[in-house]
Amino acid sequence: MVVITKISSRDVRFPTSLDKTGSDGMNKGPDYSAAFCILTTDSEFTGHGMTFTIGRGNDLVCAAIDLLAPLLSGKSLESLTANWGKTWRYLNSDSQLRWVGPEKGVIHMALGAVVNALWDLWAKTLGKPVWKVVADMTPEEVVSCIDFRYIQDALTEEEAVQILRDALPGKEQRIQEALQNEAVPAYTTSAGWLGYGEDKMKRLLQESVDVGFRYFKLKVGSDLELDRKRLSIAREVLGYDKGNVLMVDANQVSLTIPHCSPSRPN
Amino acid sequence: MVVITKISSRDVRFPTSLDKTGSDGMNKGPDYSAAFCILTTDSEFTGHGMTFTIGRGNDLVCAAIDLLAPLLSGKSLESLTANWGKTWRYLNSDSQLRWVGPEKGVIHMALGAVVNALWDLWAKTLGKPVWKVVADMTPEEVVSCIDFRYIQDALTEEEAVQILRDALPGKEQRIQEALQNEAVPAYTTSAGWLGYGEDKMKRLLQESVDVGFRYFKLKVGSDLELDRKRLSIAREVLGYDKGNVLMVDANQVSLTIPHCSPSRPN
Repeated sequence: MVVITKISSRDVRFPTSLDKTGSDGMNKGPDYSAAFCILTTDSEFTGHGMTFTIGRGNDLVCAAIDLLAPLLSGKSLESLTANWGKTWRYLNSDSQLRWVGPEKGVIHMALGAVVNALWDLWAKTLGKPVWKVVADMTPEEVVSCIDFRYIQDALTEEEAVQILRDALPGKEQRIQEALQNEAVPAYTTSAGWLGYGEDKMKRLLQESVDVGFRYFKLKVGSDLELDRKRLSIAREVLGYDKGNVLMVDANQVSLTIPHCSPSRPN
Repeated sequence: MVVITKISSRDVRFPTSLDKTGSDGMNKGPDYSAAFCILTTDSEFTGHGMTFTIGRGNDLVCAAIDLLAPLLSGKSLESLTANWGKTWRYLNSDSQLRWVGPEKGVIHMALGAVVNALWDLWAKTLGKPVWKVVADMTPEEVVSCIDFRYIQDALTEEEAVQILRDALPGKEQRIQEALQNEAVPAYTTSAGWLGYGEDKMKRLLQESVDVGFRYFKLKVGSDLELDRKRLSIAREVLGYDKGNVLMVDANQVSLTIPHCSPSRPN
């Protein structure tokens, strides 16, 4: 039995706003950061989880992780993993803390780091990556990981189980595909940040092509002409007929554009 | 011109869970607390605002107030009160802080304390209570206090102005009623907390009756039999025919009750 003995947080920030890494239509000057939760146990295993933020406020999430700590200290991992849905409900039901949440904003994000750390710890004790822990679950076990309190009106537990049962055929083959890196095509935004200049974009796109990426994302939405220019730059490197897929992300920003036609049909 | 020179927070908590003051169906052991925002200016005026919490997490709201401070420091009050809707948008649009909000949870509550402090400061400089500042506004001025970004789909600014225009007849009379304490009947929950015993309930209800209250609220929802007993106790003091109105609040708790009839029609 593994018992959680200590929960600590760590405020990690990178000054990405200096060179505009991470900049997009909504978030002009982010400092990509993370609030880490570290679970120590009475065994050799530790659990690490994080929530992503873009700088200021990361300290609030760390402070919230610290406030959640008493809910986990002294608990056995087994008691927490037996029913994740109940564990989630337990963690967001602290009589006083729920007032500043319970499932929104800072507290919600802190809970994300804590629960990620629990999954990490659990998977380590099982000797598997987290994805394989989930893949090895039955439909009933997957559904029990979710607190359906606010979902039942749209989807019941029984309906969710049925969806997963219907998808069982071919599961073993999909797992084999995943093991051969064929299941989920990855994309990269390495060159796509709004604040990057032409030379940097070209260099980073080429590097991504060279290591095998075929899906590329560019941030857009600050200025239509600039977006057109940057997309043209990207196509200079990626081409139109080499099987490279170019994607855009406006990060919720809405430009009121009276007339907008793509410079070339995709 | 009044300029804001300093923003500070104060973490104020009362150990109300000790005697169950504030206890209700959802919140069993609250320590009624407040995160205060205090605005200091280059004048004799200060602004005070608060957000209510029930204990743990109050420090998060104070820390969030401190993080919002740079957005106000050095600003003239005039520039912030000229258009409250824009001021609200400005305060929740900090490029990095918005990630942990922008209008939910801890940051949202902190913003409440800050904006309350601004209204308090403004009303003091005008020499009026806040309600009179609002009552003296035109329909257009009232509507300009609101950021309609997430409201327009359901209600436009123009529709809101029209609703207020339609309500202008009788406004002066309603203000006079308010000045004569006839406009809004106040209620008290002084005796209504779930954890209070019979003697305390009776004493507090009688005290409220004696000072003129006619509306009384009891917390319910933890146990049906207990609720019936407490409502009976309340009626012993309030009677059924003395014009006293008894209200209940289950604080979102849902008891699954197969058959529930009130012991006496109201």
